[in-house]
Order: sequence, then C-alpha cells, then structure tokens
Amino acid sequence: MSAIDELSVELARLPGIGRKTALRLTYHLLKRPPDEIRRLARTLDTVAERVRPCTQCGNPTEQDSCALCSNPRRDAASICVVEEASDIAAIERSGEYTGLYHVLGGRLSPLDGIGPDELNVEQLLRRLRGANGSAEARVREVIVATNPSVEGEATALYLQRMIQPLGVRVTRLARGLPAGGDLEYADGVTIAQAFAGRREL
Amino acid sequence: MSAIDELSVELARLPGIGRKTALRLTYHLLKRPPDEIRRLARTLDTVAERVRPCTQCGNPTEQDSCALCSNPRRDAASICVVEEASDIAAIERSGEYTGLYHVLGGRLSPLDGIGPDELNVEQLLRRLRGANGSAEARVREVIVATNPSVEGEATALYLQRMIQPLGVRVTRLARGLPAGGDLEYADGVTIAQAFAGRREL
Repeated sequence: MSAIDELSVELARLPGIGRKTALRLTYHLLKRPPDEIRRLARTLDTVAERVRPCTQCGNPTEQDSCALCSNPRRDAASICVVEEASDIAAIERSGEYTGLYHVLGGRLSPLDGIGPDELNVEQLLRRLRGANGSAEARVREVIVATNPSVEGEATALYLQRMIQPLGVRVTRLARGLPAGGDLEYADGVTIAQAFAGRREL
Repeated sequence: MSAIDELSVELARLPGIGRKTALRLTYHLLKRPPDEIRRLARTLDTVAERVRPCTQCGNPTEQDSCALCSNPRRDAASICVVEEASDIAAIERSGEYTGLYHVLGGRLSPLDGIGPDELNVEQLLRRLRGANGSAEARVREVIVATNPSVEGEATALYLQRMIQPLGVRVTRLARGLPAGGDLEYADGVTIAQAFAGRREL
C-alpha cells in the first residue's frame, strides 16, 4: 500500500470520518508544506507519550494529577461522575459546578460485555473511602452525571447501590425540558419526567 | 498550551473539521492505545518525507514519476488536465479514460491572486512541446477537465489559447444533465447547456 493510501486508511479509522472524507483530508494534507504535516505528527507523538489518565479521577492529563484535581479552589467535598472525559468540558462550560470529577470511561452495557470491572469504579470507591491517602475522605456528595439513556440510568443505579453504604449522599442530574426547547416537539418521556420533577414556583 | 489542546487546534485546521469535531476526535484518540496514535504520526511522517508531485504531471507520488505516467499501457497521445489531484481519482472511477493526466494545482482566480504563474501550466506546455525529452511529443489531444464553474471555464479558455498554437486538439468535457438527475429540479444553466449540446439519437 502506498503512503498516500495508508494515510487515508488511518484517517478513515477516526469516528465520523468515512472513506471519502478521509481521502479529502489526505489530499488536503498533500497540498500543505511537509513541515505542516510533520507538525501534526509531532503533536500526536507528544500526546501518545505524555498524556495519561489522572491517577485520581481518570481525566487525561500530562501531569500525575489533572488540573482539576490539583486545583485547591475546587470543592473536594463533591465528586461528579461522568461517562467520558469529554463530558467534563461540557459541564465546565456551564460554569455551574465547582467540585471534582470522576471519569468512568464508559457505562454499564452487558450486551457489549461492559460490566463494572471494565469501568473506573474501584478507584471511585477508593476515593470515597479515602483509602489511597488522599484528602478526599470527606466527600459528602456524589453527583451521578451519566447520560440520560437506558445504560446511563442502569449505571447510575449501580453506583448508588455501591456508594450509599459508605454514608455518602448520591444525587442524579435533573431530567426535564431542555432550555430553549419547544414543548410541542418534546418527546413523551421527557414531558413525563418534567412533570414528575416539577417544582414550586 | 497543553498537548491535548494543541492536538485539537491542529485537527481544527483541517478542512471541514470545526472546533467541536476536533475536540471529539482528540478525545477519541485519547481513548486509543498510545501505539495507535503513534502509528498515525508515523504515517504522516512517511507522507511528509516521501510524497512529492510527479515530475511529469504533478500527481502526488512516492516515485519520481507517478503510477499513471509510468504505466506503458496508458495512452500517451492524450492528456486530461484537472484542477486538483483528487479529480484524477474521480475520473479513474468512471473507467472511461485511458490517457495521461496533468494536475494544474488550482484554477485561474484573479481575485485570489492566482494567475497562470501560480498554476502548473509551464510544465504542461513543456510536455506538449516534448521539450523535456519525454516520449510525449506526440500528444494529439488535451482534454480540459477543469470544474464547470466560472473560474474553471476561464482556465479552460486560457489553456485553449496557449495550446492551440502548438497544433494540439483541445477539448472540454461535455455539459448537460447529470446521470440520475431529475429534469424538474435541474437549474436553468444546466438545461440550457443540455439543449446546446444535444446530439442525434
């Protein structure tokens, strides 16, 4: 296989990039100066070499402990559990949360062979017990922010069963109508959940 | 800037990949084994190092002369001129053409500062004159396959003016209704061109 074909095969492995897009990207790169292609290669090498999961929360980082875990201004009394590291960025954008995080690395999905052992659960329990010498023995609340899907719900229930015995409060993000959404177009499940979770004005 | 941010900035430079997609690709790569990231980096390095434009036609290749130019079974009496190397793949898929190619590397576009000197025109004329000792002095037809756009047409007219004095026949790909198209939804210019180019049945 020629180097050109190989590059387009490699790019087509990326999510959301099909054979045609991969070919288009390849031809784009072929038109750029070789140094620009090499710069992308160097960046990938740096990531492959330096980035590792944070030993505390599992968020990718170049340090031993990620920028969030090592920030003394974050509220160490609360841990927000997310499926993927990319969910952290979304929550941080909201500016609503000031505590710490924990990345599961997926969600329970027996059909795909993903059970509790495939997820970063044991380390979460260690953090809650304060067994690894961290200052986090004082965690008072775990906010489960797994996705509002069937698997996300199952994962939340599993975590609740594991965490509650430790005397830590377990909460789940609210379900309801999304901001800017239109009641007319909302699905039945969402409307039912918005009713169930209604609050006093 | 962290290595993670740097990678997502580099990826966002690619065409059709915005900030959000770049972030999604970055997080995807972060979930892969480091060796897989390094393999992509190696492929990019190989391309940056080995791939150069074919000295004859400008098509990217790892050899001095590309696979098409060095194939003795291609008809050397005809040269199909395209704007970009990616157009060659599209024409080859049609299986209709057996001659050689010539990649201009763009199209005339005065507003973008792209004149004849920015395109691979001089080398095309050299090929037609057989001045570089190639066996192509016998080219009988140049098929101009620049895009059916205003700039593509202007480029075709310019090439015709340059090539005709050399006694070489210059043709242009037919304009008309696309296969599988619907007359009802065809635009006026396309229908007008389909009328102008109508043929005896």
